[in-house]
Amino acid sequence: MKIQLIIIGNELLNGKIQDKNTKFLAKLAHKFHLELTKVHLIQDDEKAFSDAIAKAWEESDLIITSGGLGPTKDDITKDMLAKFFHRKLVEDKKAKEVVEKQYSEKQREYNDKLNYQFIPEDFSVIYNKIGFAPGLKFLENGKMIASLPGVPHEFQVMLEEEVFPEYLKYHKPKYFQKHVIVRTYKIPEAKIFYKIAPKLWEELKMFGEVSSLPHAYGVDIGVKIKADEEAELQSIENEIIHVIKSTDLSEYIWHIGEESLEEVIIEEANDKNITFGFAESCTGGLCASRITDISGSSSVFWGSIVSYANEVKMKSLNVKESTLKDHGAVSDETALEMAMGAKEHLAVDIAVTTTGIAGPGGATKNKPVGTVGIGFSDKNASDSKTYHLSGNREQLKLRFSQVALFTLLERIREY
Amino acid sequence: MKIQLIIIGNELLNGKIQDKNTKFLAKLAHKFHLELTKVHLIQDDEKAFSDAIAKAWEESDLIITSGGLGPTKDDITKDMLAKFFHRKLVEDKKAKEVVEKQYSEKQREYNDKLNYQFIPEDFSVIYNKIGFAPGLKFLENGKMIASLPGVPHEFQVMLEEEVFPEYLKYHKPKYFQKHVIVRTYKIPEAKIFYKIAPKLWEELKMFGEVSSLPHAYGVDIGVKIKADEEAELQSIENEIIHVIKSTDLSEYIWHIGEESLEEVIIEEANDKNITFGFAESCTGGLCASRITDISGSSSVFWGSIVSYANEVKMKSLNVKESTLKDHGAVSDETALEMAMGAKEHLAVDIAVTTTGIAGPGGATKNKPVGTVGIGFSDKNASDSKTYHLSGNREQLKLRFSQVALFTLLERIREY
Repeated sequence: MKIQLIIIGNELLNGKIQDKNTKFLAKLAHKFHLELTKVHLIQDDEKAFSDAIAKAWEESDLIITSGGLGPTKDDITKDMLAKFFHRKLVEDKKAKEVVEKQYSEKQREYNDKLNYQFIPEDFSVIYNKIGFAPGLKFLENGKMIASLPGVPHEFQVMLEEEVFPEYLKYHKPKYFQKHVIVRTYKIPEAKIFYKIAPKLWEELKMFGEVSSLPHAYGVDIGVKIKADEEAELQSIENEIIHVIKSTDLSEYIWHIGEESLEEVIIEEANDKNITFGFAESCTGGLCASRITDISGSSSVFWGSIVSYANEVKMKSLNVKESTLKDHGAVSDETALEMAMGAKEHLAVDIAVTTTGIAGPGGATKNKPVGTVGIGFSDKNASDSKTYHLSGNREQLKLRFSQVALFTLLERIREY
Repeated sequence: MKIQLIIIGNELLNGKIQDKNTKFLAKLAHKFHLELTKVHLIQDDEKAFSDAIAKAWEESDLIITSGGLGPTKDDITKDMLAKFFHRKLVEDKKAKEVVEKQYSEKQREYNDKLNYQFIPEDFSVIYNKIGFAPGLKFLENGKMIASLPGVPHEFQVMLEEEVFPEYLKYHKPKYFQKHVIVRTYKIPEAKIFYKIAPKLWEELKMFGEVSSLPHAYGVDIGVKIKADEEAELQSIENEIIHVIKSTDLSEYIWHIGEESLEEVIIEEANDKNITFGFAESCTGGLCASRITDISGSSSVFWGSIVSYANEVKMKSLNVKESTLKDHGAVSDETALEMAMGAKEHLAVDIAVTTTGIAGPGGATKNKPVGTVGIGFSDKNASDSKTYHLSGNREQLKLRFSQVALFTLLERIREY
């Protein structure tokens, strides 16, 4: 049950936009026990299209294409599909119907010149409830091709609600699969596999495909397991956890499972009935934004005071002018006062704060780019610590926020 | 001067991480007048690798691979390169040297077992100043392949500082290129090309490759132009701008150029010496985080009060309890009081606020998911307005923040 994705889009190859459909499709495929094996990102070009589709049609069972279905002249997916499958473009009743319906619902005037009603012969239409361009599907010899608009919300809804369910009606997955993910932090990858647990990789390989993924502030060890019955997955997972916990890696594990750091924080804060908030300088709202990406965060997250200017640090967080003068805005002292101020102003159980230098400007002799003070305040303690991290501005903001969120998680666990 | 990128990584095909290297490479290639024509995202698998590299070696001049150079057993890029080019893996003095240097600088113990010192014969090493795994390069018949680690910061620095400069030493670009981007808002794509300016596409085609990119809250019209001399680009751009401004599209253009909305805001606020801040409920810090992604934002951005809880709206923004009770947190009235409170608390010239329902929960009969109140307050006026947008939680947060930032831009222009 192999899937290949063909993304048609000069705007991606020109660097104008960031692809988000690959990750969505990959996650969803895994959930449905299917496998994304290849992605082709190609130009709006007939040769590139026919090469990619020929390869995908040969190697996989389900092909998804993304992009090129809109009303403008650079949207050539329908033409290319018709050519590749030796079909004519024909006027399709249902295509016309669904587009007209969408236009009337959105109170816009439908225009026949947009050509939405023409589709390749023998193809059928997939309803687009978000935008205008309908999707297309075509089945032959048990294989299926589905062409969807590239706009992420349209692509994602149509894939999840139409394409996968339809495909799975006729093609039951051959096995069940799961990612067992063990999330570690405060230890580098090489140290795990060459010092702390040198036999771990070989031991885990017996259960499935092993991977090691270092990222912003930790290493995720993954094992992709398969089983004939869904119920078997849990017992395999238990064995894997047992193997890992038998090594010295135990103390570096902060979570076992696919949940993100934000999700774990919200779940554990909810369980303990703890409210929290931030005061953010260098992360500029990123800690709060990451937390509020998660639905349900409002039950535990009260707010964040993004205090980019020193005036805001003083006025809204009670940081003393003398602290800023004597120690600087990027200091343990300021981070700590921000934490105590935030706890009071936001009226939360735990406040965590960031004040640092994300660069490229702002460095001083003793405080290079990447310096960050992380503070916290709760009923048990109030403290702060300076870290030195590396990366460009975007990466540093992310890493600073990662350290802040780990600090928050630890405070929740100690609470 | 065609470039192809081969990304090796099961973690991307499994949906565990989001690729960021494609967009970076694409933007950088454009800047250096090179062209990214194809991206292959493949599994850690010999057949997939040799297929992709054979195709790329045939079709392009420069091949970049990303990933698979680390110290763990799923890192097989070096083996696959050696096999494809019929080379042995040999111990390389320089490889050993650069890795040892990195380990000593980071005060970590170097371990020969990591095998960083082995590289395919006739390949040479690219220094990695961020992480440990060195990159590799190989030249034959004027073509070049460069293999880089997949970690974005390492990939990006090595590409920008080593690979492109080295390649461009021997291969001068055949032409100069530029994206002319005209950014519009408040008008749908079909209306532009089928109503307001039906001949525009054909007229622009005479200058270069035309594209139309609808996104969060607007449509970007792009023309990719080429010229033998860099100086010619400006006059072609002027002609394009003249053509577009001669249509009725003029009033929908908010910017001409590649700069982002955040960058335009910061530049114009700086020019007028205006300070601004936010009070954010539904965007949860995203407005502030987007602004602070831009280096230099601290000269105009004072801060944001992320008031997720009503308690914070009342305490830190002076929103009246009766307003929340009578009109709800998601209302014009609350958005307006938040704006006036934020202007005062942050002591800024312009405050812009968001309060809405990002979903999936929280909807009421009269306020469906996607409802958002956007408020502002400055010396000229204080007002608010309700919008109804669509998307999932992540997309709605982005669209809410987009409307807030456009409101801010308009207030800066009116100031």
